[in-house]
Amino acid sequence: MFENNLNSENCFDLYETSFVPEQEITTGSNYMFGNGYMGYRGTHPDATKENYAACIVTDTYDNADGKWQELCNVPNGLYLDIVVNGQKVSAFGDSLSHYKRRIDIETAKLTNEFSTDDVAISVERFASMDQIHILSMRLVLRAKQTCDVVVTTGINGDVWSINGEHFSEYNLSEVNGGLLMHSVTKELHTDIYVAEKAVFQCGAEVKENIDIGDKQVFRKVAAKLTPETPLVLEKFVAIYSSNDTDNPKELALDNLASVQKDGYQNAAEKHDIRWQALWDKYDIKIAGNDRDQTLTRFNLYHNIIHTPTHALLPIGARGLSCQAYQGAAFWDQEVFNLPMYLYTDPEIARNVLRYRYETLNGARRKARKLGYRGAFYAWISGKTGDELCPDFFFKDIVSGRKIRNHFNCWQIHVSPDVAYTIWKYYEVTGDKEFLHQYGAEMMLDISLFLLSRSFYNVDKDRYEYIRLLGPDEYHENVDNNIFTNYQARYTLQKTIEVYEQLTKENPSQLAALMNKLDISEETVNTFRHMIEKMYIQPINENGVIEQFDGYFGLEDVTPEELATRLIDKAEYWGWPNGVAVHTQVLKQADLVQLFVMHDDFDEDVVKANFDYYEPRTEHGSSLSPAMHSVIASKIGYDDFAYRYFVKSCTVDLYNTNKAISGGTFIGGIHTASCGAVWQMVVFGFAGFSVSDDTLHFKPALPAEWDECSFRVNHKANIVDVKMSRECIVLEGHKQNMAALRIDIGGHGMMLEPGQSVSR
Amino acid sequence: MFENNLNSENCFDLYETSFVPEQEITTGSNYMFGNGYMGYRGTHPDATKENYAACIVTDTYDNADGKWQELCNVPNGLYLDIVVNGQKVSAFGDSLSHYKRRIDIETAKLTNEFSTDDVAISVERFASMDQIHILSMRLVLRAKQTCDVVVTTGINGDVWSINGEHFSEYNLSEVNGGLLMHSVTKELHTDIYVAEKAVFQCGAEVKENIDIGDKQVFRKVAAKLTPETPLVLEKFVAIYSSNDTDNPKELALDNLASVQKDGYQNAAEKHDIRWQALWDKYDIKIAGNDRDQTLTRFNLYHNIIHTPTHALLPIGARGLSCQAYQGAAFWDQEVFNLPMYLYTDPEIARNVLRYRYETLNGARRKARKLGYRGAFYAWISGKTGDELCPDFFFKDIVSGRKIRNHFNCWQIHVSPDVAYTIWKYYEVTGDKEFLHQYGAEMMLDISLFLLSRSFYNVDKDRYEYIRLLGPDEYHENVDNNIFTNYQARYTLQKTIEVYEQLTKENPSQLAALMNKLDISEETVNTFRHMIEKMYIQPINENGVIEQFDGYFGLEDVTPEELATRLIDKAEYWGWPNGVAVHTQVLKQADLVQLFVMHDDFDEDVVKANFDYYEPRTEHGSSLSPAMHSVIASKIGYDDFAYRYFVKSCTVDLYNTNKAISGGTFIGGIHTASCGAVWQMVVFGFAGFSVSDDTLHFKPALPAEWDECSFRVNHKANIVDVKMSRECIVLEGHKQNMAALRIDIGGHGMMLEPGQSVSR
Repeated sequence: MFENNLNSENCFDLYETSFVPEQEITTGSNYMFGNGYMGYRGTHPDATKENYAACIVTDTYDNADGKWQELCNVPNGLYLDIVVNGQKVSAFGDSLSHYKRRIDIETAKLTNEFSTDDVAISVERFASMDQIHILSMRLVLRAKQTCDVVVTTGINGDVWSINGEHFSEYNLSEVNGGLLMHSVTKELHTDIYVAEKAVFQCGAEVKENIDIGDKQVFRKVAAKLTPETPLVLEKFVAIYSSNDTDNPKELALDNLASVQKDGYQNAAEKHDIRWQALWDKYDIKIAGNDRDQTLTRFNLYHNIIHTPTHALLPIGARGLSCQAYQGAAFWDQEVFNLPMYLYTDPEIARNVLRYRYETLNGARRKARKLGYRGAFYAWISGKTGDELCPDFFFKDIVSGRKIRNHFNCWQIHVSPDVAYTIWKYYEVTGDKEFLHQYGAEMMLDISLFLLSRSFYNVDKDRYEYIRLLGPDEYHENVDNNIFTNYQARYTLQKTIEVYEQLTKENPSQLAALMNKLDISEETVNTFRHMIEKMYIQPINENGVIEQFDGYFGLEDVTPEELATRLIDKAEYWGWPNGVAVHTQVLKQADLVQLFVMHDDFDEDVVKANFDYYEPRTEHGSSLSPAMHSVIASKIGYDDFAYRYFVKSCTVDLYNTNKAISGGTFIGGIHTASCGAVWQMVVFGFAGFSVSDDTLHFKPALPAEWDECSFRVNHKANIVDVKMSRECIVLEGHKQNMAALRIDIGGHGMMLEPGQSVSR
Repeated sequence: MFENNLNSENCFDLYETSFVPEQEITTGSNYMFGNGYMGYRGTHPDATKENYAACIVTDTYDNADGKWQELCNVPNGLYLDIVVNGQKVSAFGDSLSHYKRRIDIETAKLTNEFSTDDVAISVERFASMDQIHILSMRLVLRAKQTCDVVVTTGINGDVWSINGEHFSEYNLSEVNGGLLMHSVTKELHTDIYVAEKAVFQCGAEVKENIDIGDKQVFRKVAAKLTPETPLVLEKFVAIYSSNDTDNPKELALDNLASVQKDGYQNAAEKHDIRWQALWDKYDIKIAGNDRDQTLTRFNLYHNIIHTPTHALLPIGARGLSCQAYQGAAFWDQEVFNLPMYLYTDPEIARNVLRYRYETLNGARRKARKLGYRGAFYAWISGKTGDELCPDFFFKDIVSGRKIRNHFNCWQIHVSPDVAYTIWKYYEVTGDKEFLHQYGAEMMLDISLFLLSRSFYNVDKDRYEYIRLLGPDEYHENVDNNIFTNYQARYTLQKTIEVYEQLTKENPSQLAALMNKLDISEETVNTFRHMIEKMYIQPINENGVIEQFDGYFGLEDVTPEELATRLIDKAEYWGWPNGVAVHTQVLKQADLVQLFVMHDDFDEDVVKANFDYYEPRTEHGSSLSPAMHSVIASKIGYDDFAYRYFVKSCTVDLYNTNKAISGGTFIGGIHTASCGAVWQMVVFGFAGFSVSDDTLHFKPALPAEWDECSFRVNHKANIVDVKMSRECIVLEGHKQNMAALRIDIGGHGMMLEPGQSVSR
């Protein structure tokens, strides 16, 4: 048992034995299950929209209120209501004799147990990783003494939705002994089919009837149960939308019939096997610290279940845990979620990067709209890649006046962040087919954007970026933000590499591309000139790099003192006139972020900058602590590294912040910090990086752990890594195709297939 | 009698016969007198600091509160107190039998008359235009019946000061039968000497004694007056500071003795002769509308008395009417105050432009501080030219949080505005000596600043200015503001002209200058490239020019509707989150301003832009209405022209706004709008402009007037202009050295010396 009502049986689960109503929103997210196609919140079996029950489905974007496009919370096919002797029995009940909610992380199954004096109830639910359109539920209801029981299940279309009611119609029917709900979204007229089939088994006689309402279709089952005649309900729900397929109704019914035929037990086993394969790739095993083992797996689990792999779709900033942040990708996707996949399962990264390729036209439209050429990826990127972030969406809570945010126009680093990840993907896979077919076009068009957004300062003979918003969002409207300029130069460098590769290897494809993108030789030469003349903030006499022009001249105050200047604790610290704007206090440290992504800075520079920026960072972003952990590890600040590790791992688990603010739901899983757990362990504690086809390790195992092991992949070669306090052991898989160059703390060695090395 | 308690006897004065306490601050400014060296507020003779009595003296800059440098309000040498039969008799008295306050604009003399049942008092005061360090006062006190009278006069050092007490010490003494106060300023230890000598004449016996306090030195005179024995007090005050001379004390005493010897009557006559000469140059005579004649002269008068001509000093935004705006120059000086002088008395303009030359190093320091080369003239420019505008000086009144203003860093048009006026001065005078000795250096250094502040947009092959604040201060942080870019290009063009002139005429001076300023041939070529490639917002299909990038995309709302969104009527409409920021509502119209300064736009373009911008302009700046009047005249919008003329002329006279806001004094004379009256009549109603040594006229006399006449000067040739509804008559002075090329409404003609032309 650790903090915040959290327990674990086997370090591969979380459970609670009491319900804390104040944390209902948070626990609904933390206990959720999902499979990348859909996310089902871990609320109680009888939860409704009042309890933030939700089943969020990918690729159901719809704008219902004229303002926000978001994923739909589809009709709830797992609706459940239990009445015993005329009284509702609920997991929310305050006089339960037994209560337990447990998410099995290993197999992504949620179990709810709750008992009264009359009955004992157990409900298991999961979203199949084998059949991703299928939700499954198994209810076992045992009477302790003879009871009249009525169980209602079916499909409830009366769902929670943050920004308006998405469905304009509901068509309800009984089909093949099951229930079917066809709803149609308001904006884009997407058809959504939810089909369910429930099978009751019971020793006692059972009376069934169907109850069809406006938005609900339910099956009601009544029985007089005795202790000897438990009632078992096994049901499946199939969900398809017309964005998934041209015949969603047929597929829903077919899929449902097929899984139904196979039975609940087989479905669960197939699902478990899929999960076993995932953990083989992604698991990080920690010996000697059960809490940290559990925290780590919790975060890995969420990075998995929120990543769509079935289609070219984004990883949402809140994943599939709710509708917040519009089910849309931010730069978080490339920089926080993808590294785990890049080094363990690069096909997944490829898929997400292909989503960026599919949305190139949206990025181009955004660039045109703002007067630029090339591809300017959206700050909030949904299905089409068009910018979903409106100019005005939050308010100054002191004056009540709307605030013009500039995330959508000044945060230009999103585009080079995509290019950076394309190149990283290429580095770890050597996948030239992807690079040439998709990457080159994206990189050239991003570089074109970077050119058209840049200015040449004639007087200083350098290229500059003016009016930026870096990762540190407390400082808008800044110039030459080091993170942005560095990423831009890197992008241009790698674009020239791709260009030169294509010049040699595929000149006709290159010519076609240059023609399509309207990029001339002269433009390529300008790219080269930009690389040469890009202004990168210098390292000052103390080894510190100024985050942007003029930063050092801002008021130097601690985040703690700054907090005392707040008029209202809930006010925004940034633009236009928040407390941090004219100070050195950061939301997150751009330089720390940069060091995670680029290892070409000397360690003393990294250290000097960490020393400077860390005390000035407020960590107002959940992205911040993890990056501090990684860099603290690298510079030998083990205490910092571990402290930030715990802070980052518990962003969701220990979250006691309000998840609703000013009537707006802002809760849900912080998928970026979930993805970052892998970086903290592998990049941070193991000191892993790849350069020039060499796998570098520089272990710094936390004092709190005995051992830690994980798996990495380089160009389809797999390496199992195990670190203890004494040594690190690397084992090359037998199937590896080549020996790998390894560097451990400066000592080079070769790792042959089927062999191991250690130090 | 016209609005707001204002009357005139002869259209060359203003008077009131009742005192309105609520307007005390405003009338104190409106009735003031001065001579360019000092300004003495037109308060009552017995006013004290509670009544905003003040004598503001040029070149006494001092920072007393650690924040604001401002001119000192020096000890009041005209202190007066009258007691009759043991009762104070005051111009503020509420049971006066007669009251009149009158400023004679023609001779710059203030007269206060007030009577009780016992006495009739008349006080005349003026600041000598002949001896600019001398203040004069004449009191005549007549008894209606026998009274005991005590008159106290002397020097009162207990003065009103906006930003702290400026004097660290007061040394009081009796010298040569007069009184002397030596005070020393806190910051810069400037010595200020106020010497006075009062002479009493009275038929009755007079008892005198001296009363010396901490900050006061007074002479008290007691007499028993009868109707036959009036008391007459004639006194002079001499004021010198150690910034005026090395021996201020001696000069004060000598000057005082000399004027004393000459006597009050002679002093007044010499003063009057000086004023007659000024009106010969500056007066605008209007027949058929007494009110407008008076309004016009009131504004001309103030433009005169606030302009220092004795030294190289700035014209303050509130002149010498009070300490507000720090006695410092803004761009108003060149663009609003100087045109009258340029075309009537260019020596005065030369003097003010030499002030800009003297402060070049301040402008250079400002540029360096912000990372630029060349000369970036201050938004608020005092003695040294260093930027006096702090980063933070006002507050968001809704949150109480300080606001970072960007007047001091983004309002870069001040520098090209100076260059523009240098060139205009050269155009109307042909004064090459000034151009080469002073103008060239300023223009080259301003151009160097404009280069270093510019960016070359490689993709669009053009130079841009990013992050600007144009004259329309409601829109900060804008790009390619038409006013700024146009003025910048004009400056570069004229700099190249000067450069080429020097290349031919004085290559060694040019070489020395280039060396001093570190400007290479290559830099000059960059100037040329900038001229060619400067981005100037295009004229759109409706003939309208966008004020800055993206302006047309802002919310289109009327100023009236916008006003309803104010949370507090006193809140600022602009940065960072005022109501106007995200709308098209302007504080003043940059394009209208631009058209006043440049006549190379087609009339249909001017009209289309006036039609577009005028309804969107809130005139939150007192600079705005006059420019609208000028342009309305030019495009035949006579009603608009006249309405804006009256609005601009009465900015101070009809002012019913609060002159104190949040404890801060913001009253005083709006010297820019005073200077603008000349532009409205001469540029607007007479359609006067000069190009290629041709004087153009395009008369549009307001329907409300019968006749209007004024005088202009071109290269030392004087032309008297008289417009009636029927015709315009131009008369060349006999002393003119050459015939002048004239164009009246497109008809060219020559004006010979001593001849006249008409049309």
